[in-house]
Amino acid sequence: MLIALFPGDGIGPEIIAQARRVLDALAIDGLIYEEGLVGGAAYKAVGHPLPPETLELAKRADAILFGAVGDPDCDSLERHLRPEQAILGLRKALGLFSNLRPAKVFPELADASALKKEVASAIDLLIVRETNGDVYFGEKGMRKTADGLREGYDIMSYNEEQVRKIAHQGFQAARARRGKLCSVDKANVLETSQLWRDVVIEVSAEYPDVALSHMYVDNAAMQLVRDPGQFDVIVTGNMFGDILSDQASMCVGSIGMLASATLNDSNQGLYEPIHGSAPDIAGQGKANPLATVLSAGMMLRYSLGLPEQADRIEAAVGKALANGARSFDLGGSMNTVEMGDAVLAAL
Amino acid sequence: MLIALFPGDGIGPEIIAQARRVLDALAIDGLIYEEGLVGGAAYKAVGHPLPPETLELAKRADAILFGAVGDPDCDSLERHLRPEQAILGLRKALGLFSNLRPAKVFPELADASALKKEVASAIDLLIVRETNGDVYFGEKGMRKTADGLREGYDIMSYNEEQVRKIAHQGFQAARARRGKLCSVDKANVLETSQLWRDVVIEVSAEYPDVALSHMYVDNAAMQLVRDPGQFDVIVTGNMFGDILSDQASMCVGSIGMLASATLNDSNQGLYEPIHGSAPDIAGQGKANPLATVLSAGMMLRYSLGLPEQADRIEAAVGKALANGARSFDLGGSMNTVEMGDAVLAAL
Ligand SMILES: CC(C)[C@H](C(=O)O)[C@@H](O)C(=O)O
Ligand SMILES: CC(C)[C@H](C(=O)O)[C@@H](O)C(=O)O
Repeated sequence: MLIALFPGDGIGPEIIAQARRVLDALAIDGLIYEEGLVGGAAYKAVGHPLPPETLELAKRADAILFGAVGDPDCDSLERHLRPEQAILGLRKALGLFSNLRPAKVFPELADASALKKEVASAIDLLIVRETNGDVYFGEKGMRKTADGLREGYDIMSYNEEQVRKIAHQGFQAARARRGKLCSVDKANVLETSQLWRDVVIEVSAEYPDVALSHMYVDNAAMQLVRDPGQFDVIVTGNMFGDILSDQASMCVGSIGMLASATLNDSNQGLYEPIHGSAPDIAGQGKANPLATVLSAGMMLRYSLGLPEQADRIEAAVGKALANGARSFDLGGSMNTVEMGDAVLAAL
Repeated sequence: MLIALFPGDGIGPEIIAQARRVLDALAIDGLIYEEGLVGGAAYKAVGHPLPPETLELAKRADAILFGAVGDPDCDSLERHLRPEQAILGLRKALGLFSNLRPAKVFPELADASALKKEVASAIDLLIVRETNGDVYFGEKGMRKTADGLREGYDIMSYNEEQVRKIAHQGFQAARARRGKLCSVDKANVLETSQLWRDVVIEVSAEYPDVALSHMYVDNAAMQLVRDPGQFDVIVTGNMFGDILSDQASMCVGSIGMLASATLNDSNQGLYEPIHGSAPDIAGQGKANPLATVLSAGMMLRYSLGLPEQADRIEAAVGKALANGARSFDLGGSMNTVEMGDAVLAAL
């Protein structure tokens, strides 16, 4: 099975290196790795954030393990050359539409959240975010108004097929968990959300065992602070999912701990930590590699069909934390490699 | 001076009644009140959420004191007949573009937040939200794709004039506070945000004394949980402002405490609590009227030029809390009228 490694920018190479060490330690037969250039690193090397060879490798691979993209040097490039286009381009080209972002507190870290311990400890939710549509991928541009004013515009839209696909993902995830699905939209203002809500209700007929609720996005942002323990699975669109999943990850207390998977119809997947490239600490050994290690675990589970190995990774991370392993973001002083060592020791 | 009272739906009439008692107790010369129908209440009475007489009264008034709109009975009406259209229609028709949402913890309530006390106590921020543009007011509708699929769409846009106006509001508010302005957008994905960012930077040349920063909306949602004390003034668009201001209000701990003002170019304003119509507790006397009382205070300050009277209202609310007044949302058992009594006693 072929794994594409895309380290990317900033702390990307450091964290991917530790995930690779953990994967190697599992000594799984038949895994092959190929590395590719993405993001600002790719732009600087070959003039494009998602070069054709990278895209071709991604398409051939069974799974992609992705570090992070984002480089302040590239902020004033034209949009299609910016590092972020690597992740957006991969999601679109490979049809990676179902972004799964679990948020759960490791008991050892319950104190790390800005939320009260009893509120944070209750968090055990999964955000299922659509990542192939919405205002991310509609027509967009700069134009002039009738009065000659500069105007920026982006078209938000969803069609019923897109909503149906992600709704099924949400219902199935809820069925495999605690049976509760909350669909988040802004149907009181947006037609895109109205279509979303209508289709989610249609799909719900196939899942009588799942309790479906609907929430406006502004209320959801409040409820994620007030009582995040009320949520099991949240299904939402690309834009709202971007905001709510980052918010939820911070409620857990440590953005450095949260993994994600983005799957297409054939369970090919892209796996990446939720945190970004953190250019301010790049190259200093301060990055926490655990989100990437846990992303590698999700990869074994969802794309490579190796749930026992995935369990081993998750258990090793928990044990390393229990043994006191703490990187800087967790209030400790262990560097990136030492955190990798701690996981290896616990394996 | 003419004040339009629009109680609206759900708990709206109960909370407006208490705000009115407080205003009456101030015995301000020359205030005249006229009441109007809005929201689901207006739809049920005359078939439209924002009847012509209401709009005409709003235009004549110096200020509007608004309860809340939203009524589950109306959820399946056509969009233009839903209660929410009252608030959206008033914002648009009166050019109410500058929505000010202060979030600050009353020391007596610092324990009420889901955030740790030391995190919540540090919150003292103001969100300046644009409310005349963005995806709220662009062309929207349902259409068919080339394959015959149902598709919902909404056009997001801002022109430079709209951004310039709200940017000035943000810079001026920052100048009057701690001199820090954070502009929130999603310029790595949206052209609307790119224009937003470009224009905010242009306007910043006129405010060399204000420290401007930029933050992506997903990061802002994280930072509002992690360390909300870092923010002074946040300026953002209609959609992101809707989400972030509700999130911030919950960080403060008590959505029942937060007031808002929405101003146009001539300082005519609409004043409303941030919370909604809460149909689940309507008519039970459980609503906390303090957000509406504080909104009346903002009205005296911003539209009626009576800052001393506004100070008196704010001080009375603080004193009522210090005296132990607690409604249900604050963990107490005082009903809506008793909370009003407590403010009157403290005046
Ligand atoms: C880098 C950016 C384009 C991306 C997004 O907005 O989707 C990121 O924030 C994420 O959530 O994966
Ligand atoms: C009721 C709704 C249309 C409104 C909005 O989204 O602006 C409300 O949430 C608000 O924030 O005032």
